[in-house]
Amino acid sequence: MKEVDLLVSGAFILTLTNQGIIEDGAIVTKGNIIFDIGKKDILEERYLPKRRLEYGHGLIMPGLINAHTHIAMTLFRGLADDLPLMEWLNEYIFPAERKLTAEMVYWGSLLGCAEMILSGTTTFCDMYLFSDQVAEAANRAGIRAVVGEVLYDFPSPNYGDLENGFRYTEELINKWKENPLISVAVEPHALFTCSPDLFKRARDLAERYSTPLIIHLSETEEEVKEIKRKYGCTPVRHLHNLGILDKRLIAAHCVILTEDDILLLAKHQVNVVHNPESNLKLASGIAPIPKLLESGITVALGTDGPSSNNDLDMFLEMGTAARIHKVKNLDPEIMKAEEVLKMATINGAIALGLNEIGTLKAGKRADIIVIDLNRPHLIPMYNPYSHLVYSATGSDVITTIIDGKIIMENRELRTLDLDEIKEKLKEIIKKLGIETT
Amino acid sequence: MKEVDLLVSGAFILTLTNQGIIEDGAIVTKGNIIFDIGKKDILEERYLPKRRLEYGHGLIMPGLINAHTHIAMTLFRGLADDLPLMEWLNEYIFPAERKLTAEMVYWGSLLGCAEMILSGTTTFCDMYLFSDQVAEAANRAGIRAVVGEVLYDFPSPNYGDLENGFRYTEELINKWKENPLISVAVEPHALFTCSPDLFKRARDLAERYSTPLIIHLSETEEEVKEIKRKYGCTPVRHLHNLGILDKRLIAAHCVILTEDDILLLAKHQVNVVHNPESNLKLASGIAPIPKLLESGITVALGTDGPSSNNDLDMFLEMGTAARIHKVKNLDPEIMKAEEVLKMATINGAIALGLNEIGTLKAGKRADIIVIDLNRPHLIPMYNPYSHLVYSATGSDVITTIIDGKIIMENRELRTLDLDEIKEKLKEIIKKLGIETT
Repeated sequence: MKEVDLLVSGAFILTLTNQGIIEDGAIVTKGNIIFDIGKKDILEERYLPKRRLEYGHGLIMPGLINAHTHIAMTLFRGLADDLPLMEWLNEYIFPAERKLTAEMVYWGSLLGCAEMILSGTTTFCDMYLFSDQVAEAANRAGIRAVVGEVLYDFPSPNYGDLENGFRYTEELINKWKENPLISVAVEPHALFTCSPDLFKRARDLAERYSTPLIIHLSETEEEVKEIKRKYGCTPVRHLHNLGILDKRLIAAHCVILTEDDILLLAKHQVNVVHNPESNLKLASGIAPIPKLLESGITVALGTDGPSSNNDLDMFLEMGTAARIHKVKNLDPEIMKAEEVLKMATINGAIALGLNEIGTLKAGKRADIIVIDLNRPHLIPMYNPYSHLVYSATGSDVITTIIDGKIIMENRELRTLDLDEIKEKLKEIIKKLGIETT
Repeated sequence: MKEVDLLVSGAFILTLTNQGIIEDGAIVTKGNIIFDIGKKDILEERYLPKRRLEYGHGLIMPGLINAHTHIAMTLFRGLADDLPLMEWLNEYIFPAERKLTAEMVYWGSLLGCAEMILSGTTTFCDMYLFSDQVAEAANRAGIRAVVGEVLYDFPSPNYGDLENGFRYTEELINKWKENPLISVAVEPHALFTCSPDLFKRARDLAERYSTPLIIHLSETEEEVKEIKRKYGCTPVRHLHNLGILDKRLIAAHCVILTEDDILLLAKHQVNVVHNPESNLKLASGIAPIPKLLESGITVALGTDGPSSNNDLDMFLEMGTAARIHKVKNLDPEIMKAEEVLKMATINGAIALGLNEIGTLKAGKRADIIVIDLNRPHLIPMYNPYSHLVYSATGSDVITTIIDGKIIMENRELRTLDLDEIKEKLKEIIKKLGIETT
């Protein structure tokens, strides 16, 4: 009998590999690695675990990957909804963000981590100000993260002039390079806020350190119009002209695309992150995701920030992604549940360059969540993929394991004190001078 | 000090009346009636309650009204998704429904009741086979319901020939007429399954007993085409020609409408029920709800059946309703959160003719739910309407009171035994011969 750390067993394991679904299955972990996976009775004979987690009514699956968000915007969740994008940004969000401090971002990020861990997200990819604090929060929470400091032509409330932004990013890369949970990306904001020169320097930095390059791309018609006016071509073509399109690039949104744009993205193996709930709420449009998938593009899924969504629940995002394209294309057979689940797991891993996560397989990192099938809305179960995408919500996650550690167990957070976070949030909201209710 | 039954207090009460939001508020109930509502400290001085429910982190609001569903279809939840409507119906749902018995519908309905009570729905409006069993289940669960037996030209697995269907409906009306929770409607299925003669008889029956008349209307392009071919006009115009359009009529879906249809619906004060998640998933289309509201039509909200949704969570339905019309109309200012919340409460009450529910007001029936604001995804709170529509899910409901009775408390069902329901469901699935997973 071989000694291992955890043996997690459940009624079903969704491996998302060619092992498919294992009934009465188990996973054993050693350190931060999945050591074995298979039938529970066989693994019980083979291993002596330090701890057993048994879920007779549980479905075990890979942790979800939120591939695009701004988690510290929990601070502004529900502040001024149902407004045009520019009014919302200029009159509410930007003025509030100008008052942000590193401490505020830290606590807002912890709150976002709590929400994600409780709803089954085990990895998130973030873009924000004071991103070292986002990394510190993720590290304390024990959640896997790709973070990056947002770069743009105008002065930042964090680093001031752009020159410092590049230095800040480089220091961030070096600070976190040995951490098993945190990695750092280079993150120019968007085409309408970044000069061609900024993009080229960002690309060079990303190449030098082999990090992802992350941007917002073709989110709205206004953006496309502005870029066409300025540069005489679409945003995608503009990036192509700058030599930015390649498989290092992660482009969030991609709502407004031409056929030529899609060909360029596919040819250069650009990764796309779909954020349907934010795109709907801000009335930006519906990204042509089925076409992107058909073209062989890796499409991951993200919630965008919690102030344009307004939550970080990837189960809800999957449900919206599965439904919205059916009605747009008047075709109920597209965006099948299993395909959408892959967008929220393995596609996210591929896009972020994190090949060690995304499926349940021996040798991968142990990022595992357990769904409680003992809920009325998950009974009966004909097809687990359908249930996860169309019926489940984040509240159905009972246990979250990240990098081999139990981070949430039976809905109890193990690394964070929610009462402490709430108290800090109250102080921060007071300092920001935003009235609540 | 006046003796009352319950005093329920919370951080906020959303009355949905001109009292607006009451901070540190309380509601007192006596029997099945809201006796008083106001500031907690004042009501505490005035009343001596038999029981106090105190929610320092709670938001108290009217129970949600699911204005169109088929709850016993919990039995087929997730069976064969991502298929064209006709393949799904003809190859999976209809064959399964032909094997249904009264007992199966009873237990499937109890499961649906459990899900609704746990997610804050206090009233539902149903259309199905063996509808007396739906009523029996609702009555046992303690949830308010409008039920009705689906009528169509072909023989029913319940009542056989149509003649018996009218008799069944009449008996149902008489059986339940004194019950405080259950009311009965006359429910011809749809225009493509019911003859003009059936509609006229159904309308006469509804008029004789003063019940609602409930139908599916203009759900898909195929339906509109078929009715045009058969009768030379749109489904709405066809109903108008039959003299069916009036304020007794509740029309579910109304996805495909002409300007003339909208004028007719408005002129005759027809009530419409919007079912966005089902319409998206089945790729039917997006109903022109903002136009209907603008025309003064009462639009309520429903989940449709749990096999085309695939859940009965009205919070998720509100989120989808608020987002989908923004993107369809490329206008982030339409379908504001408060308007959508009204669709799921007072508009449902008006549509169903249940003026005794829908808001929190002295004299109305005590249908009350409590939301736990102590969840990370509901912190901070700038605007309660936004939170309820964009961030909350049914799992955030901690307590459900219906007709003055505590039906669910701290997530524990008080009237139903979920384990018993689950055991029965297993037997039923076996009898139906449907393979799970």
